[in-house]
Amino acid sequence: MKTNNSLDALISERYSKPMSLPFELNETLETIFNHRSCRHYSQEAVPEQTIELMVAAGQSASNSSNLQSWSVIAVEDPARRDRLASLSSNQEHIRACPLFLVWLADLSRLETLGKRRELPHDGLHYSELLTVGVVDAALAAQNAAVAAESIGLSITYIGGIRNNPIEVAKELGLPPRIFAVFGMCIGYRHPEKPAAIKPRLPQKAVLHREQYDALAVQNAADEYCENMNHFYESQKMKTRGDWAQHSLYRIRGAESLNGRDHMLQALKVLGFQLR
Amino acid sequence: MKTNNSLDALISERYSKPMSLPFELNETLETIFNHRSCRHYSQEAVPEQTIELMVAAGQSASNSSNLQSWSVIAVEDPARRDRLASLSSNQEHIRACPLFLVWLADLSRLETLGKRRELPHDGLHYSELLTVGVVDAALAAQNAAVAAESIGLSITYIGGIRNNPIEVAKELGLPPRIFAVFGMCIGYRHPEKPAAIKPRLPQKAVLHREQYDALAVQNAADEYCENMNHFYESQKMKTRGDWAQHSLYRIRGAESLNGRDHMLQALKVLGFQLR
Repeated sequence: MKTNNSLDALISERYSKPMSLPFELNETLETIFNHRSCRHYSQEAVPEQTIELMVAAGQSASNSSNLQSWSVIAVEDPARRDRLASLSSNQEHIRACPLFLVWLADLSRLETLGKRRELPHDGLHYSELLTVGVVDAALAAQNAAVAAESIGLSITYIGGIRNNPIEVAKELGLPPRIFAVFGMCIGYRHPEKPAAIKPRLPQKAVLHREQYDALAVQNAADEYCENMNHFYESQKMKTRGDWAQHSLYRIRGAESLNGRDHMLQALKVLGFQLR
Repeated sequence: MKTNNSLDALISERYSKPMSLPFELNETLETIFNHRSCRHYSQEAVPEQTIELMVAAGQSASNSSNLQSWSVIAVEDPARRDRLASLSSNQEHIRACPLFLVWLADLSRLETLGKRRELPHDGLHYSELLTVGVVDAALAAQNAAVAAESIGLSITYIGGIRNNPIEVAKELGLPPRIFAVFGMCIGYRHPEKPAAIKPRLPQKAVLHREQYDALAVQNAADEYCENMNHFYESQKMKTRGDWAQHSLYRIRGAESLNGRDHMLQALKVLGFQLR
């Protein structure tokens, strides 16, 4: 049962406790369960046409009504990556990685089509359509991430791209009604800076049967805080208290959102009416 | 070069024109590029612990600041699936599939932790945090979808779950500050009802270098409309005009959004302040 053991080993590491599932490990599951974000890249360039492979993987994901309301910008120019890093809490790996992708919720493409065809497209101005674009961008990006990891690359998402949405839109030459949802660093992991699989909440905190079970969530969250204390110690990570405490600190108020407390106003400047 | 040819064959089908990339096909890429949504399921049950496998895959995706602001509800009860189908434009496959997952943006877990720890958590009330939950739910769901497909299952996303957010929240017993982002049908594809890979926009319409290129987008979109006319014909699909025309019809105005034009009000009823 070697293969089963391999799957169980990966899953047990993900939950930092023994867990067993009755499936054989396959390459896809191995890629998925092995994921860890990468914040230290080697200098090596990514293979030729990695971008095209990732975009094709992204486009192979489901999307809402085949509207395909997302786009992506590949940024390789070091000067532009430097400016984007400055706009995203100065995360050094945006400068260090060889390839940076910015994933966009894109309502502009359909709007322009509507104008050219002289057909009504007023539905674009409802907040629902921004949600569609955000979800579609995320589904595509995750497919692209898994594809990249399957060929030996590493990635990390950059939510910090939302810290300064208007400046980011200017830097990327975005027409109105396009929103940069997140960035993604891609490259080879620095061989001397490996990363551990980060444990997640027990399934009882996340998975519900038929209806939501709020009590189970809190018991499982307490268990997770204990587990994560061991993880932080083993990784020599300095955190502000346990998982609950430092997570709550991140959402303590407007001042903890790195400018994203102005998101609604920024979206309106970017041309989203959000009816 | 058999393997290369296999990858190229899948990618060329995805764009309904010849395309070649310098990579070998691996199992993960094969799973991703082979994706097609499934709206006709066999009666066969999914394997034991498919749910746990999919959730573990979902939790292995990246998420924002490890806040893990998503949850999922597994619905197997036929009566509940029937009611959820009625709330989601009566999509028959919600009733027919053996397993239905509802993916949630979940700010309730952190809020309850904040109250129990008596720590401030006012950041939850900004629209940014709902975006975080929506993105995290989507990244997790896509990982889960790929994992399911890697073991021979088929899936389809159900955006229709957003047609009636308040009633869906009641049906699933959701506490305040949880939003059902989309559903997902899972099961085995009906052997007599195969589906073709659906062609997507040319990469020129989606992928930009350094800055957004609006002119390239429109030329590529025109090319796509031509391609899709052939696809609709080959699949005997009746559409309202070409891709641009029927896509624009879907977003023609509030009346085309199946109730989702009231999304903002519904979110406020569900406890999202959206500051």
